[in-house]
Formats: sequence, C-alpha cells, structure tokens
Amino acid sequence: MSQIAEPKNIESNADKKSRAAQKKSAKEFLDNLTAQQFPNSRKVYLQGEHSGVKVGVREICLGQSLVGGDEQNPVFEPNAPLPVYDTAGPYSDPEYTPDIRNGLPKLRQQWIEARGDTDVLDTRQAAYSQKRMADQGLDHIRFDNLPAPRKAKPGKNVTQMHYARQGIITPEMEFIAIRENMGRGNLAAQLSEADYKNARTGIYIPPQITPEFVRREVAEGRAIIPANINHTELEPMIIGRNFLCKVNANIGNSAVTSSIEEEVEKLVWSIKWGGDTVMDLSTGQNIHETREWILRNSPVPIGTVPIYQALEKVDGVAEDLNWDVFRDTLIEQAEQGVDYFTIHAGVLLRYVPLTAKRVTGIVSRGGSIMAKWCLAHHKENFLYTHFEDICEILKAYDVSFSLGDGLRPGCIADANDEAQFGELRTLGELTEIAWKHDVQTMIEGPGHVPMHKIRENMDEQLEHCHGAPFYTLGPLTTDIAPGYDHITSGIGAAMIGSMGCAMLCYVTPKEHLGLPNKEDVKEGLMAYKIAAHAADVAKGHPRAQMRDNALSKARFEFRWEDQFNLGLDPERARIYHDETLPKESGKIAHFCSMCGPKFCSMKITQDVRDYSKKLEAAKPGTEASKGMEEMSIKFKELGAEIYHKG
Amino acid sequence: MSQIAEPKNIESNADKKSRAAQKKSAKEFLDNLTAQQFPNSRKVYLQGEHSGVKVGVREICLGQSLVGGDEQNPVFEPNAPLPVYDTAGPYSDPEYTPDIRNGLPKLRQQWIEARGDTDVLDTRQAAYSQKRMADQGLDHIRFDNLPAPRKAKPGKNVTQMHYARQGIITPEMEFIAIRENMGRGNLAAQLSEADYKNARTGIYIPPQITPEFVRREVAEGRAIIPANINHTELEPMIIGRNFLCKVNANIGNSAVTSSIEEEVEKLVWSIKWGGDTVMDLSTGQNIHETREWILRNSPVPIGTVPIYQALEKVDGVAEDLNWDVFRDTLIEQAEQGVDYFTIHAGVLLRYVPLTAKRVTGIVSRGGSIMAKWCLAHHKENFLYTHFEDICEILKAYDVSFSLGDGLRPGCIADANDEAQFGELRTLGELTEIAWKHDVQTMIEGPGHVPMHKIRENMDEQLEHCHGAPFYTLGPLTTDIAPGYDHITSGIGAAMIGSMGCAMLCYVTPKEHLGLPNKEDVKEGLMAYKIAAHAADVAKGHPRAQMRDNALSKARFEFRWEDQFNLGLDPERARIYHDETLPKESGKIAHFCSMCGPKFCSMKITQDVRDYSKKLEAAKPGTEASKGMEEMSIKFKELGAEIYHKG
Repeated sequence: MSQIAEPKNIESNADKKSRAAQKKSAKEFLDNLTAQQFPNSRKVYLQGEHSGVKVGVREICLGQSLVGGDEQNPVFEPNAPLPVYDTAGPYSDPEYTPDIRNGLPKLRQQWIEARGDTDVLDTRQAAYSQKRMADQGLDHIRFDNLPAPRKAKPGKNVTQMHYARQGIITPEMEFIAIRENMGRGNLAAQLSEADYKNARTGIYIPPQITPEFVRREVAEGRAIIPANINHTELEPMIIGRNFLCKVNANIGNSAVTSSIEEEVEKLVWSIKWGGDTVMDLSTGQNIHETREWILRNSPVPIGTVPIYQALEKVDGVAEDLNWDVFRDTLIEQAEQGVDYFTIHAGVLLRYVPLTAKRVTGIVSRGGSIMAKWCLAHHKENFLYTHFEDICEILKAYDVSFSLGDGLRPGCIADANDEAQFGELRTLGELTEIAWKHDVQTMIEGPGHVPMHKIRENMDEQLEHCHGAPFYTLGPLTTDIAPGYDHITSGIGAAMIGSMGCAMLCYVTPKEHLGLPNKEDVKEGLMAYKIAAHAADVAKGHPRAQMRDNALSKARFEFRWEDQFNLGLDPERARIYHDETLPKESGKIAHFCSMCGPKFCSMKITQDVRDYSKKLEAAKPGTEASKGMEEMSIKFKELGAEIYHKG
Repeated sequence: MSQIAEPKNIESNADKKSRAAQKKSAKEFLDNLTAQQFPNSRKVYLQGEHSGVKVGVREICLGQSLVGGDEQNPVFEPNAPLPVYDTAGPYSDPEYTPDIRNGLPKLRQQWIEARGDTDVLDTRQAAYSQKRMADQGLDHIRFDNLPAPRKAKPGKNVTQMHYARQGIITPEMEFIAIRENMGRGNLAAQLSEADYKNARTGIYIPPQITPEFVRREVAEGRAIIPANINHTELEPMIIGRNFLCKVNANIGNSAVTSSIEEEVEKLVWSIKWGGDTVMDLSTGQNIHETREWILRNSPVPIGTVPIYQALEKVDGVAEDLNWDVFRDTLIEQAEQGVDYFTIHAGVLLRYVPLTAKRVTGIVSRGGSIMAKWCLAHHKENFLYTHFEDICEILKAYDVSFSLGDGLRPGCIADANDEAQFGELRTLGELTEIAWKHDVQTMIEGPGHVPMHKIRENMDEQLEHCHGAPFYTLGPLTTDIAPGYDHITSGIGAAMIGSMGCAMLCYVTPKEHLGLPNKEDVKEGLMAYKIAAHAADVAKGHPRAQMRDNALSKARFEFRWEDQFNLGLDPERARIYHDETLPKESGKIAHFCSMCGPKFCSMKITQDVRDYSKKLEAAKPGTEASKGMEEMSIKFKELGAEIYHKG
C-alpha cells in the first residue's frame, strides 16, 4: 500500500494553518461558553414524582394576535408560549455557568446509588485506561476530576430493560415520559383518535405518554434508553418508533484532522441544534482522552464504534485484532460512560463474498475491518463468536447495543441485496440473544437506498429484528449530489422515519468529501430535524404538528418575530427576511416580502375571513359554506364596503 | 390599508446600496457572458431526421479505471463519457458567443414556417404593447430587433396537441424523443422489464422513447410541450409523468426589488443549474420589457401569471380587474412568446368561504386576487366564465394552460381540505374544455402537505384531471423551518415526483422570507434536481440511475475528479474535498478523506474483491457466493498473502 501517504505527510501548510485557526476558535468558544439560548425562549423545569426528576423544556414566548377592533382601538389576544423538546441540557439554562473542565452536574448519580445494585471501584479496570493514566506525557490533555468507575455488583444486571421487565419504573423512565410530552397535559380532549393512532404504519403513540408506557416499550424491546451508569451527566432520552423520531450527530477527530477542543465544541454545538445523541467516531490521536472530555460534558447519550479504537491499538492492522484487545476496549469505554456501542457482529464470513460483485463493495469502516479480519484468519467474526461475552460486559454498565450494518450498501445500485439482508437477519438473531441478557438493542440500517426500496428496509427490519428500534444513516436516495448529501439523505430519512424508523443518523454536506466543520454539523442537523419532525407529523405524534400550527398562525398574522422564533433557526430566518425588507419597517409591515404591498394575498385573505364572519353574524347558525345563492342575499344586505378600503 | 407602506418608503439606504451592487454585478455577468461549462464536459449534438433537429447533450468525460497489473505495470480501462440532459441551450456551447442584445438563434423558426398555418403580423396587436412601443421614455430599456409576431391563420389551431391528435409527428416531438433518451440507444437489451415498467405507480416509460411515443402522450393529454410559436428560441421539452421529472425555477422582479439585468442573469443562471422551465413572476416596474428580454434569451419555456400584470394595469385594485384588460394581457404576452400561462379559473365564488376557517386562508397571490374580485362583485370568477374565450386565444399561439391552484393550502394544517379539492375538481372540468380545443394543459398543485397526505393529492389529481400532467410547488412537509424550505419541500417534491408528478416548482431557502438572490436560486435548483432525479430513479426511468452508477463507480475507484464532475455541482464537491485533504495529494491518494489511510474501507473492499476473484479463478464457474465451506478450501489453496501487504 505504498501509494498511501501517512498522516504526517498529507497535510499541506495551508491545511495546517486553517486547522490551527479552527482549533483556536474552538478554544475561544469553550473559554467563553455561556448559555446557548434562542431569542424569546426561556428554560422551564417540570418536576416529576421521583426525587431529582426535573425536566428542562424550552418555551418559545409569543407576541399577541390582533383579533379585531379598528386602527384606533385594536383588540389583541395573547398567544400561549410553545414548549419544545430541548436537547441542550444545562447549556440552554442562563442560570447555569458551563465549565467544561469540571463537566456537567451529575443528574443521575443519586438515582443510580439509590438502586443499590452497583459497586464504586477505586480505579478504572481497563488495562489501557491504566496505561494512559500512568503516562505523564498526557497530563496536559487529561480531564481532571475523573469520576470513580461504577459497575454492577456481581450477578446484578443494571440495564433499564432489566428493570422494566421487572415492572420497575425508574426515574429515567419518568423523566422521559415528561420529556416526550413536552410539558403538555393530556391531549385526549383536544385530539381525535386519528391524531394519535396510525392504522397505516401500525405506530401507536398514546395521547399522553406515561412512565408506564415508557416502561412497557422498553420491556418489550421496542424502545431503548441509552444510559450507561457511568454517564451520570446524562438527561435520559428514549429511542423507539412510538416516540418522537430522534436524530444522531456524528463528531470525532481522525488521523488527518481536529483536536479535543474542536470535538467538545462540536458536541455543544450539536445539541444546541437538536442532536438527540452524539456518536464519537474518533480515529486519530488521544481518542481515550477526547472521549473523556466529551462524556463529562454531554447531557445526551454518547455512542462509539469500539472497533476503531481497538484497531488503533494494533497499529491499524486488522489481522492483528483479537478478542482480548477488543474486550479491554469495551471495558475502557464502558467505564468512561459510553451509552451505546456499534458492534459489527453480523458481518459473517459467508456474507463477505456476496459483496464482491457490488458497485461499491463494503463501505462501512467497521464492516470492512471485520471482513478483512475474517478473510485473513479464515475464521468467523470474533464479535459474533464472543457475542454473549459482550452481553455480559454491556449489562454490567447498561451500555446499549447498536448492532452495526457492516454490509450496508454504499450506493443505490447495491441497495437491498443479499449481503445487506443476510446480515440484517443475523442482527435479528443477535437481538434475541441480547434480549435474553436484558441488554437494550437497536439495529443500524442503510445507507444508500432509492425511494422505491425504502419501505422494504423498514418491513424487513421489523420482521427479522422483532420490533427492536431501527437506526438508519439517511438513507441517501441518489448518489449524484456530493456536497448536498444532507438533502439526498434527508429525503430518505424523512420517509423511513415516517414508517417508524426510531433514530436518524445525520449526514452533512461534507459526506463522501471530507470531515464536517461546525457549519456542516449545523446544516446536517437542520436537514435531519426537518426530516424527523416531518416524520413525527406523518406518524401522527399528538404533539408534533402544534409547532407547525403555531408558526403558520404567526405567519398568517404577520407576527414576523414569532415566525422567526418558532422556526428551527431563528437567526437565519431573520437574516434572510432582512435581506429583502428593511430591518424594522418590514417586521411590522402587514404584507409579506414576496408580494409587496398591493399583492399581499394574506391581507386579502383577512378580508375574505372578515366577510365570512359577517355572513355568519348576519344569520346566526348559517354555515359560511352553504354556497353562493345564500351568500348572494347576505352580500346585498351587507354591501361590499370592506372591499373598498383597497 | 394605511398601515401598508408604499414601495418607495420601505427601502432603507442599506437595501438601496446592496440592490445597486446586485444590479451592477448582474450587468457585469451579462456583459462578460461566455459559455456556462462544467469541468471535463463537452457539448455534443445529435441529429434528428427532421431538418434542423439538432439536440445538444452534455457529455461528462471520465478518466480511466485501474483494473489490474501491479504498481510497475498498472492496467487501465477507459470509461465511456456519460451523456446528460442539458437545459442550458446554446449557453453551454463554447462555440457559441452569447449576445443578450440580439437574443438566441431562432431554432424553431423554420419548423413553424414549414407548417404554413400561421401569419406573420406587421406589428403587435395588444393595445398595451403598442402603448409601450410608442413610449420613447422606455427606449433605454427596450429590447431591439423585436421579432414580428406570429399568429395562427384564421380557423387554424397551432397547438402541439392538435398536431399530435392528427397523427403528425412535429420536429418538436422528435427533438424531445432524442433529448429524453439523452443520446443513448435502445436499452431493451441491457434492461429487464422491471427497469422500465413500474407496476406500483402505473408509470410506463419505454426502454427507448420514440417520437411516436411522444406524439401519443401529447395526443392523450398525459404530457405537454410548452412551445409558443412566438418563442422560436426555444429548445423543445416535455412535461409528463412518463418522462423525466422536470423542475421549474421562479424568477421575477417585484415592487420592492430587482432589475432587468438581474432577471436575465437569473434566467441564464437557472438553466445552467438545470431549470427545465422558468416562470417570470414579475410584479414590479417595466415587466413588459423585462419579459421581452427574458424570452429572447431563453432556450427553456417561460411561464407567467398574467393576472399579476393585469392587476398592475388597474393600479393594483383587484375590484377593477375586468375581461378586457385581462384579454389584452393574454394577447400581449402570447405575442411575446410566453409558453404557458397560470390561470386561476378554478377559484369559484362558492369555494371562497371554505377558506375562512383555515389557519392561513388563501396564500396564492392569484387565488386571493380572484377571490377578492369574486366577493367584491359578487360574480363568478371571470376567468371561469370566459374560459372558452381564453382557449381561443391560447390555441392561436400554442400557449399551454397551467391551471392554477388558487386555493392551495398555505400550511400543513390546511392540506387536502374541501376548498383545495373542490377547486381541483373544477380544474378537472376545465381540463376537458381545454382539450376540446386541443389546448395543452397541466394542473398546479400544493403547497404545504404533510407526508402522509401527499399520496392523496396525486391520486385525486389523476382521477379528477384525467391524467393531465401535475405540477406542484413542493409540497412542504412541515412549516417549522423558515430559511430551509428548499429542504422541507424537497422531501415532498421527491415523494410526489416518484408518484408521477410531472414537474416540480422549486422553493428556495428564502421562501416565506424574501426574494431569492442568485445563490438562493442555485440552492433551490440543487434541492429540486435531487428531488426530480430521486423520483426518476424511483419511477424506474431506464436512464436515471446510470449517472448514480457512474458516480458510485468513480467513488469506489477513488477517481475523485470523475466523482466531482459526475455530480450536480462539481465546484462545490471539489471545494469541500479540498477543505479536508490537501489539493493534489488528496485526489490521487487511495483512501477517502473520512477514514484516513489506515481505515480506508474502500481500499479493504478492493482486497475482498481481489480475494473473491481469485476464489473464482481457482475453480472456473464457481460462484463466489457459494458460502464459506467452499471458500475455506480455496482459501487454504491460495493462502492469505493478499492480506499481508497492510
């Protein structure tokens, strides 16, 4: 492989400079880190019954609606603040002063202690962790105040699934029920069944999500709560088809680029823009230390692909991987608090040749590493042969499985082929083994899939994986737009989300081209929050469409500020608006910037509405929709005066 | 409406300045206009049988693939250039020197003359056109060399539908057949029926699109060829569910902003990035002259909404609109060469009150203007009552109908309601009347529709509009992302396109916020070319996926230059790539920028492929997929030497 340059060689000076600049700006961002707030938003907390269950919700405060009167005496009506799901944790609370050197408050610590089924160990058990801690050369990048690692007492199982199956409702479950309801009360009154029962997809979301509903979904394996007992900073969240569709953001350094500061910055940035979980895919320098900084400062679950680090430990030679180095890596990361592991245990030796005739073969890093190992040793994948050993480790820390699709298609031509679906069936077998151990499990999915083949992916996954949550990357619906794959994949993500895919792994505009910077992370998240929300609306989530309706009402009433603030990106909306209309006059002017004053269709609609109101008023009980004959009479009675303002 | 500021007042100095800058850059762009080419692309022409049928296609030239040998003696294999559909017309031909003051070559003139069913008039007939021509104050903005207007001889019908129904294959139809095939021969050999017959959607696209197939689709009303006899600069294209999905870009000045130069620049820019048609939605100053410049320089069909200009003529007072001013506007624009008119003839008086209870009432400009007129006069919509008169005008110039959905929903809460579907049924009645006159007709559709209600829109339109082409705006699948509506709507556009929607009207990131600038136009087009292409793949268009496969092959083989050039936006792909990897070394390095050298999954896949090749070679006829037992033996025979390079 002599044509492959080494990292040190492939960096031009220009690159070095821009990298240094990035690192510097990241450091500044963190040194000056204050509350990540949105305009006109406030952070409110909702108390649960368990002690310490205090769920942060973002409330978007709205202006008043003009509902009548005249220009001298206008009559206004207030609009209730709109509560929205907040992934930013303490970072969006102005009362909280972030200090990434100390990490976040340990919200879950008392809950975990109270269960009394764990031991606190005096030091990390993983050999690699001990080696790193002993290395004084790393002092300058080390996170201080390392928490003491916690582990299940011998014979104990500390997974949320284990508790759920015993009928125990944990504080984590209550936290999630309150969170998924976004602080809104029972909606049964306001909603018809059709609003929350979805016959088409079989998705069932009750009008009010109760702690018991959360427990049941976890007990039955349809949802997971990624929550390592060593990640006490976590604000619990749930991944399942009968809940809000979630979005994952990938961060991580590589052999080629990036620093600890940049990764922590990307984490904080990701959750500001709605990342529900974050995967640290680091493959470069000091990934042990980088991960520690990320976990101690993350209120969202952190996922990893342990095989990447294991490979680092054997100098990148796949053939040299073995169970011992992998096992130590799992313990190392579990003790740090990683909440879910991507494990490519479904890449079986017999599937590997099925990829030979593909247009793009194997594109999953983990999948190709394991394929190479299998062929080199001509043995079955050791992640598969050691799967029960892995379960034993995961259940001692409550790390969830994200069973990796190592053979996912890398282009639409390879979608839904035998290699992909063969592996999927194996992931289904592994799910049953994991559940035997009460280890929480979700299934990773493609990748690149044309629109007409997406449904089959969801159907196959449901059938073969027994309802375990599906977690897909995109899928990209076409391969022809490098630089725009947040869009090519956002289409597929929205579709599979509406079919019940529980979490969508974002794709940034840099996909296939390079590593995302901060702006790319935001672009990817915006596309995926859109996809997930559009999916929630289509799923019939009782609360999903409320934000749409609030924004549309503001739009119709020319409450520009409210329209901006109810959107996913108030800053951008405001900037775009101000490019066409002057700063202030535009926001009060009662016409939209597309039409100009004389063409304002929304203004005219208000006339239509006034007219229909008068129609009804003129004869109580008259339905405005009774057709033109009736209108004809009324109209003559009323005269058309309202239309001569013009 | 005193709270409504007048245009002159709402422009701040800052806005004036930035507008002046835009206008200046537009002028420079046009003064220095040269071929709009893409890297490694060349323009080739395919001759038809009719004289003058010369179809321009863009060919993307590709590098060689490394297929074997060793580092000393590598063996390469060439890759055939990939022909792609080119909307840019002469502008993408390096041999052509654009001169917007003279306009484009008159490709269709001889075809139209040869038919002998039209008269050349010595001057424009529309009263308004004559008034404008007489106004010397307009000399400085006037387009010189006005072509003499052409009109059907008395009693003649010059629509493509009329010819098609008489069994005549026009040069326009032959041009389209060649164009839709993108210069590729009969694919029947390479393709299975499943590749081009789509049982799921009922869409039928033959392996080879023949002129006769084009004729039949037009004769039966399933497709239209917008091609005004006064738009001789046009390169014919077709809009129909059994052809490539098309994309429309909206341009146009408003009372608030923009100039002639900017609009012509947006036109040229739009077709560079794949706009199949362009709608001029101007509502501001000098729209007659602006339209002339656009038409004389446009190789794509131009659509308008005549009611906008008619309203200008009555000083923006909807109540003052009348048939005479509208009729004169139709003739004015038909003589200029507008190819399709949006006519809001379905906004009936009885539907108007149905919008009163909506969250956002009536949001279509044309729809609200007609609603206001209907209520003010308490008469039925004069576009409806004069519909046959409109048909008489359109068939004399071959202007196609784009029947406007004036009551489309303005938010997802209003989707699929009685106002919307009531109007749709009326558009179906009007379609039958138009067809009685052999006037080509397509139907406009929403708007804002949540994912789970999109299918119903396509089904209702097919049923009530008898298979006439559907042309939708988006639809937006959620209302919560102002600033990102190219994405919220790209999702809906891809979905409805895959169901057979024939043309997608783009939405830019500025939707709901302001007027798009050049960059917004490009962003909108990229999102919509992605949506249309993803739809073509899902529809089973025989040629759609070829570009995906060519790009994926290049990606797999690390042919970075080819990967960039096969994409929709080579420039952006290259820039993104170069941000992470150094300029040159990156493009030859045999690993992708995401993984770094040791993690390159694609490199490993090549090993897997080599291995499987050897497996097969070892025993001819052996299928690599026969499973691991067999592999085991082969493996021992071969040894794992290829895996020890690492």
